[in-house]
Amino acid sequence: MAERVYLDWNATALMRPQAAAALQAALPLAGNPSSVHAEGRAARHAIEHAREEVAALVGARAGDVVFTSSGTEANALALSPAIEISGEERPRDRLLISAIEHPSVRAGGRFPRDMIGEIAVDGDGRVSLAVLADAVVGTSRPLVSLMLANNETGVIQPVVEAAQIVHAAGGLLHVDAVQAAGRVPCDIAALGADLLTVSAHKIGGPKGTGALVRAREGIHLADPLIRGGGQERGLRAGTENVAGIAAFGAAAATVRQRRADEASHMLALRDLLERELRAISPQVVVFGSAAERLPNTTLFALEGIKAETVIIAFDLEGIALSSGAACSSGKVQPSHVLAAMGVSPPLARGAVRLSLGWTTTEADIERFLAAWRKVSSALSKGCSESKGAKDERGMAA
Amino acid sequence: MAERVYLDWNATALMRPQAAAALQAALPLAGNPSSVHAEGRAARHAIEHAREEVAALVGARAGDVVFTSSGTEANALALSPAIEISGEERPRDRLLISAIEHPSVRAGGRFPRDMIGEIAVDGDGRVSLAVLADAVVGTSRPLVSLMLANNETGVIQPVVEAAQIVHAAGGLLHVDAVQAAGRVPCDIAALGADLLTVSAHKIGGPKGTGALVRAREGIHLADPLIRGGGQERGLRAGTENVAGIAAFGAAAATVRQRRADEASHMLALRDLLERELRAISPQVVVFGSAAERLPNTTLFALEGIKAETVIIAFDLEGIALSSGAACSSGKVQPSHVLAAMGVSPPLARGAVRLSLGWTTTEADIERFLAAWRKVSSALSKGCSESKGAKDERGMAA
Repeated sequence: MAERVYLDWNATALMRPQAAAALQAALPLAGNPSSVHAEGRAARHAIEHAREEVAALVGARAGDVVFTSSGTEANALALSPAIEISGEERPRDRLLISAIEHPSVRAGGRFPRDMIGEIAVDGDGRVSLAVLADAVVGTSRPLVSLMLANNETGVIQPVVEAAQIVHAAGGLLHVDAVQAAGRVPCDIAALGADLLTVSAHKIGGPKGTGALVRAREGIHLADPLIRGGGQERGLRAGTENVAGIAAFGAAAATVRQRRADEASHMLALRDLLERELRAISPQVVVFGSAAERLPNTTLFALEGIKAETVIIAFDLEGIALSSGAACSSGKVQPSHVLAAMGVSPPLARGAVRLSLGWTTTEADIERFLAAWRKVSSALSKGCSESKGAKDERGMAA
Repeated sequence: MAERVYLDWNATALMRPQAAAALQAALPLAGNPSSVHAEGRAARHAIEHAREEVAALVGARAGDVVFTSSGTEANALALSPAIEISGEERPRDRLLISAIEHPSVRAGGRFPRDMIGEIAVDGDGRVSLAVLADAVVGTSRPLVSLMLANNETGVIQPVVEAAQIVHAAGGLLHVDAVQAAGRVPCDIAALGADLLTVSAHKIGGPKGTGALVRAREGIHLADPLIRGGGQERGLRAGTENVAGIAAFGAAAATVRQRRADEASHMLALRDLLERELRAISPQVVVFGSAAERLPNTTLFALEGIKAETVIIAFDLEGIALSSGAACSSGKVQPSHVLAAMGVSPPLARGAVRLSLGWTTTEADIERFLAAWRKVSSALSKGCSESKGAKDERGMAA
């Protein structure tokens, strides 16, 4: 049997050998990082070393990195009315999020539902700066949360411009950089973000660790989500995932060195993929293709073909694809991202995401294209047949 | 140099080889457990297998186990006014906790401070059932949180009796079994607990994963702490720590088989330790020694000797001990547990905890005792001298 082809890196990336090695090296660390003895100090050292690496990846100070158990938890920690700026201890009076945020941001953290507003996106999947500028009027201390790159389309958001609007309105900007980190530059200061979320397992670290990063000391996370012991300077209680964090640090260090090369590599393959895909299926729609996108992501659909069927067919061909977000426990729901972009529900139901990684090869893309030729032709036929069958059943009822 | 002796298992246990092997085996699992393709299903399978093992450890159904990132997070998830019983959808009107709970329980989860009451303990460190019975009067739907065994003293709490009182009052009982699991029997039904917290790294799994277990389906965690994707049946969002959870499962399976043998082994060594300790230092006070305790824990003090000094001296001798809880990031604070037991602050400041594990040997105990002879005699002398010095400085001022 041919080897599997993994093209679902936005769901989770393969673990980098450097991360696996760091994890292995940390496993024998017996101590609790809060203990003062040698075993405790060794575990503490592993965490603090990783903190420097993660900070460096986003241009922050180590002291401004709070390790969490996931990007989702980091988002939940960030989205609280009690985020304060030094010298201005008043709660945030509104949370504004784009219409295409990750479910963990859409959940709104600790903001009551009626304090949350949604910012529309355009047909290319970019948040509308005009709508944002209107929305911050009438708020005095908004918290705005925007993703740097969308997980489904890969579309990169105008975060730098948004930051100017948000700051001019006295607001704070949280940027969910989970999909962007390691694929495009993510310097917290250059982006103008006040808070930034990253996740280990999207950059080649293990599942089970993430971080919320502050741009500067003056931003207070005054309402920790998980309280108890004094870990993470009181901002996140619970014994730390020492080995996972060590591996996160190693992944961050590796991706910091290799990002530019890996991005060019992925972009070349993604361009090849889309070119050939359009050649095979001229009717194919590539979502967000007019916008700047991550170098590794393509989300496309072909009218009349359902994504679930494609995913299953490709899985049988040995190729792992996705119908978009992987976060909904197998439940197939229409994409809120495509809905926000104004894509018609029938077309949205056919959206298939390919996301590439640093080990993806041209041969992987060729395997996909060969399978697509076969599957798309079979499914297009099957689709018309089953439409006919459905009509018959409809008439019989 | 002699090998280190690790006697701080209540802070964190060594990883079991079975857990390390399961973790290694899970590392190459590329998929996101929420993905439907083969890679995703393999990751999902690892989690569900571990869920069965963790459930079996506490006599629960797999479907009632919610994986979290730590015992602390499991406690935070449990302690919400929105814990509901089927057919009775009203919030809990009070949280009652004992005076010796872990900081993550003392933080009170999502109960406002003025809804939290504290239950006193007796001089042996056991929660007072009489005080509990009084406290539940006047509440109609209390949530009570009691630890099964205290992390500092090892004293086992009268949870079964407490459950009867709590249930008679229409309340729910949450049991923090983080220190007890794997050391004493922890069957959720036998304990009468409605919710139970366990942590992987105390039973030989990795740091970074824990679980909240329900006694039955009818208990609704109606207010998830971390929201977003539909992971953990919507009760805990965020991509799962797949490798950590797999290792947690392996640790649970191992400890389930070996608990009784390991407990006898640790108890024999702990008894030897306390016997010899009393022989060397007849003035030593072993806290909670009149109560039933975990087989692996001893907390003791010798008037005039400060714990910090002991910990550092022993660390230099190659022996890892603790001054009690390890959860306060190295800050040495007087123990709230000993204060609640009525121990005088000077004596409490000398409290040193030894906690044993399954690899502890008689030679380890002998190493400790030899060092104790040396250190306690030096510190007793040093203490009188420094007292003199302090008095002199005091007079000079």
